[in-house]
Amino acid sequence: MSDAIDGTRLRERFDDFNEIGATERGGVNRPSLSAANREARDRLVEWFEAAGLEVTVDEMGNLFGRRAGADESLAPVLFGSHVDSQYNGGRYDGVLGVLGALEVVESLNDEGLETERPLEVVAWSNEEGVRFQPDMLGSGVFAGVFDVEYAYDRTDKDGNRFGDELEGIGYRGEQPCEPRDLHCYFELHVEQGPYLDEAGLSIGVVEGVYGFSWMNAAFEGSADHAGPTPMHLRHDALVATSDVVQAVRRIAGTEGEDLVGTVGSIDAHPNSINVIPERVEFTVDVRSYDNAVVEAAVERIREEIEWAAEREDVTWEFEEIMRIDADPFADECVETVERAAQAVVGEDFRRIVSGAGHDANYLNTLCPTSMIFVPSVDGISHVEEEFTEWADVVDGVEVLRRAVLEKANE
Amino acid sequence: MSDAIDGTRLRERFDDFNEIGATERGGVNRPSLSAANREARDRLVEWFEAAGLEVTVDEMGNLFGRRAGADESLAPVLFGSHVDSQYNGGRYDGVLGVLGALEVVESLNDEGLETERPLEVVAWSNEEGVRFQPDMLGSGVFAGVFDVEYAYDRTDKDGNRFGDELEGIGYRGEQPCEPRDLHCYFELHVEQGPYLDEAGLSIGVVEGVYGFSWMNAAFEGSADHAGPTPMHLRHDALVATSDVVQAVRRIAGTEGEDLVGTVGSIDAHPNSINVIPERVEFTVDVRSYDNAVVEAAVERIREEIEWAAEREDVTWEFEEIMRIDADPFADECVETVERAAQAVVGEDFRRIVSGAGHDANYLNTLCPTSMIFVPSVDGISHVEEEFTEWADVVDGVEVLRRAVLEKANE
Repeated sequence: MSDAIDGTRLRERFDDFNEIGATERGGVNRPSLSAANREARDRLVEWFEAAGLEVTVDEMGNLFGRRAGADESLAPVLFGSHVDSQYNGGRYDGVLGVLGALEVVESLNDEGLETERPLEVVAWSNEEGVRFQPDMLGSGVFAGVFDVEYAYDRTDKDGNRFGDELEGIGYRGEQPCEPRDLHCYFELHVEQGPYLDEAGLSIGVVEGVYGFSWMNAAFEGSADHAGPTPMHLRHDALVATSDVVQAVRRIAGTEGEDLVGTVGSIDAHPNSINVIPERVEFTVDVRSYDNAVVEAAVERIREEIEWAAEREDVTWEFEEIMRIDADPFADECVETVERAAQAVVGEDFRRIVSGAGHDANYLNTLCPTSMIFVPSVDGISHVEEEFTEWADVVDGVEVLRRAVLEKANE
Repeated sequence: MSDAIDGTRLRERFDDFNEIGATERGGVNRPSLSAANREARDRLVEWFEAAGLEVTVDEMGNLFGRRAGADESLAPVLFGSHVDSQYNGGRYDGVLGVLGALEVVESLNDEGLETERPLEVVAWSNEEGVRFQPDMLGSGVFAGVFDVEYAYDRTDKDGNRFGDELEGIGYRGEQPCEPRDLHCYFELHVEQGPYLDEAGLSIGVVEGVYGFSWMNAAFEGSADHAGPTPMHLRHDALVATSDVVQAVRRIAGTEGEDLVGTVGSIDAHPNSINVIPERVEFTVDVRSYDNAVVEAAVERIREEIEWAAEREDVTWEFEEIMRIDADPFADECVETVERAAQAVVGEDFRRIVSGAGHDANYLNTLCPTSMIFVPSVDGISHVEEEFTEWADVVDGVEVLRRAVLEKANE
């Protein structure tokens, strides 16, 4: 269904690129600032330059390739994603958005098309956050959320500094990493969830990103012996916690259509087969596109924790450690993507909200932004089995091309 | 209410003895084969000898003090407990049974009473099992359950062997540690549960020890992202586990009057705030004095695990790793203790079953056995706050004296 992008060229590049850091089980292992990540960056620079892009690297290692516009005084259209991977991650996550952006440029070159505005392709540093936390560090500094020194001082588990490792792979650039004037930002990405695949659709027009809350909680009871302690005299921190695990599942099913809730982490003490759990610490993650739903869910979970503590006669602790509001993308960009999707796949798309965060969130604070999702088969991501049908990839890149072109000629 | 034991002498010895390894918060720290454990053994040897007992130490470090009987050809009455402690444990656990036994001997000495049968006071090695596993190692070897070499090869977490450490504190004796002819065995111990304290009773006549089952189980689902994965497509191993935690609590409340059930240990993977738990491993401990109730509970828990796995569409694993039948003590010894209790406290006692294991379990395989419990205030044990009213201690030792005397003149 594609018009102007060259799916064969893209496929060759995609396969070639994913030889770098390839794993035996079909994934890639290119964590941030690794040797494989350096090699991936080198390849991008080579291809960017071969496509006539002017390459710059900023002080965070964010890699830009600029294609001149008819009017160089206009703010550029920026589009791209990232090429760092999870440890033993998939071949599509991030890569698609960067190689897809390059293919858009190549297709314009093929046609000899000049756009009014300059175009910039970008590969953001340290999106995954598996080696250096927080994630989305390159775009975060670019958006002014973190300063460069903070980013440089992040260490991996071996104590290596981000700044030193960036220098070490030769990608600590000169250009300041700071907000600048942008016309808009687009990012093509795999969905990393099952909605599109389940519905049999090719394209997701991303309206925004879920808001979320992260909570730490704990119960503390008595570490009595599992034998001589009758049930009615127990103060079992794990029984109270299991009440909350059940409540989170129930709340997610009743408090909001799009609400999801997860108890992801749990640690019990003394964690012994014949001792009643004295203390259990656990986390709760809730997400919705409706900030009021997140707010209500947090309040309800706090109540459930109180009730569970009361039932089991244990003490409780609760702290909300992070709250990020839902991030709706700019209508104009969402509508641009939607028009492009209609042109490419007809009815074969839906509007969608992203459950996971992306570099696009930070860009959305700087300029009108939207994203394009292509399906993740079975919703699987962050693992070597990650897979997207190639026809969907080609459609996604074509949607990106049309969205970029529309905005680049405004 | 006591007749012949000297509560003041016992109190002085109890306080004196608990200076050894005393903690700031009122407990004791005398784990097996520690310097404090050696000092405690030295003190016992000194007091045993001062009381005219013939001291022997066997190759497991079990410490015996023998008082001759009128007929030395008769099998002796054995009574005692242990003096190793939990790390930062309480002052009553074990100590009461050994110092109480010594006080029984002293009181007979005071009266100039000779018994038909010889008497032997014992302090068993390594009852607690906090430094070297398994627990009840000294009495276990004595009963022929483990061989000596197996016991010697047990290591603590620093890799020190039990045999070497026993040698190191000078308590690797010459006498073989093996089953021998005994008339009966009595053990006075704190209840370590709340039943006596709750009922306001002074004495528990221990009929036997609960049977139990230990189970290992696991669920395995999918480690999907907590954001983009809708509730209806989740396979959350922790939600399934929380079903089982709830079921264990419910089963314990419905399947048998004395049934207790505990999920004591839980480990989740990857245990990350924003990832759905892929795998959760947990343990279940169920206990009852009725073997059929334990059997039914194990079967029911296995079913609940299957049902939880089906609901959440995850795989499950289940293994029963240990099953110990209920251990009823010999009627004749239980009745002896009951008569003694009636004589000492009138109606102020009840028959009771022990939820925890004791050295007496192993002795029960060798000779008629019973135990005497005194209350643990609030059921608290294995911690520094462990406490028993002194009047109850004195009653308990007096019951022990009467039970020993009855049997020693048979």
